[in-house]
Amino acid sequence: MKHPIRTRQTAPFRWESVPLLAYKEDGGTHFKDVTRQVLFEGGDHLGAQLRYFEIAPGGHSTLERHHHIHSVMIVRGGGQVLVGREIHDLAQHDLIYIPPETWHQFRATTPEPLGFLCLVRCERDKPRRPTPADLAELRADAVVGAFLRH
Amino acid sequence: MKHPIRTRQTAPFRWESVPLLAYKEDGGTHFKDVTRQVLFEGGDHLGAQLRYFEIAPGGHSTLERHHHIHSVMIVRGGGQVLVGREIHDLAQHDLIYIPPETWHQFRATTPEPLGFLCLVRCERDKPRRPTPADLAELRADAVVGAFLRH
Repeated sequence: MKHPIRTRQTAPFRWESVPLLAYKEDGGTHFKDVTRQVLFEGGDHLGAQLRYFEIAPGGHSTLERHHHIHSVMIVRGGGQVLVGREIHDLAQHDLIYIPPETWHQFRATTPEPLGFLCLVRCERDKPRRPTPADLAELRADAVVGAFLRH
Repeated sequence: MKHPIRTRQTAPFRWESVPLLAYKEDGGTHFKDVTRQVLFEGGDHLGAQLRYFEIAPGGHSTLERHHHIHSVMIVRGGGQVLVGREIHDLAQHDLIYIPPETWHQFRATTPEPLGFLCLVRCERDKPRRPTPADLAELRADAVVGAFLRH
C-alpha cells in the first residue's frame, strides 16, 4: 500500500480515508461501545502499528492478556484502566504501559468518550480472555472485582 | 529498564520522569528551537520508539533524509512540513507519513509551538543532511527554496 503523505483530521478523532472499524472482528459481549481506527498500518519496515481506540461513556474494552506489550497515550477524555491488580485514573496525555501477560481493561468512567492511541508490534500473539479460574482469582481482590466488566 | 505502568502528564506536553532532551545530540545550527522527549523507548519486543518533538514558534527541524520512515501525528499547534517537494499545512491530529529517502523539514509557522508524536524503528539509519548539490537541486524549485531553512 502506498501511504498518503498527509492524512487530515476531518472531525474530532476521525481522519480522511481511515475507516471506523469494529473493536473486535469476532464481535462478542465481552466489551461495550468501543471503536478502532488504524492510523499507521506499519507494513513498510516500521514493524509497529498505531491504532486509535475510542470507548463511549459507560463502555469498556475486553478484559484480556497477551504476550505482546501495549504502549498507550490517552488523547481524549478520561477514565480508568486495570493493569494487573492496579487501577489507574486516566487523564489527557497520560501514558500507559501494559507489560506482557498482564490482565488489562479500559473503562470510560467520565461523561466524555475515552480515546487513546495504542502502539503494538505488527507480529503479535492473539489476546486471551480469562477462564473461570482466572476470573475467580481476579475477583478474590474486592477492588479489582468491583472494577471488572465481563 | 522496568517501565512504569502509568506516566502522568505533569504540565502541558511534559511528563513525569521523562527528561526534556536536546533535539540532536551533536548540537548544530541546522535546526532552531526544537526539544525531544522519549515517551516509549521500545526496548522490550516492541521494536519501535515513540518520541514527542516540540518546535517553538519560528523554529524548524533539520532538513534531512534517511532510509527509515517516520510516522507522525500532530498533537499541539500547527505549522508546515516539507516532504519531498510537497509543502503541507499541519493542524492538530493530522497524520504525516515520511517515506524512505525523502527530504523533510518541519517548521512552526504559527504563534503556537508545533508539537508532534514521531514513531520510528529502534534500529534505524542515521539521518543525512543535504550536500551543496542536493541544496541546489532543492532550491531549483522556487517554492521549496523559499520554504527551506538551512
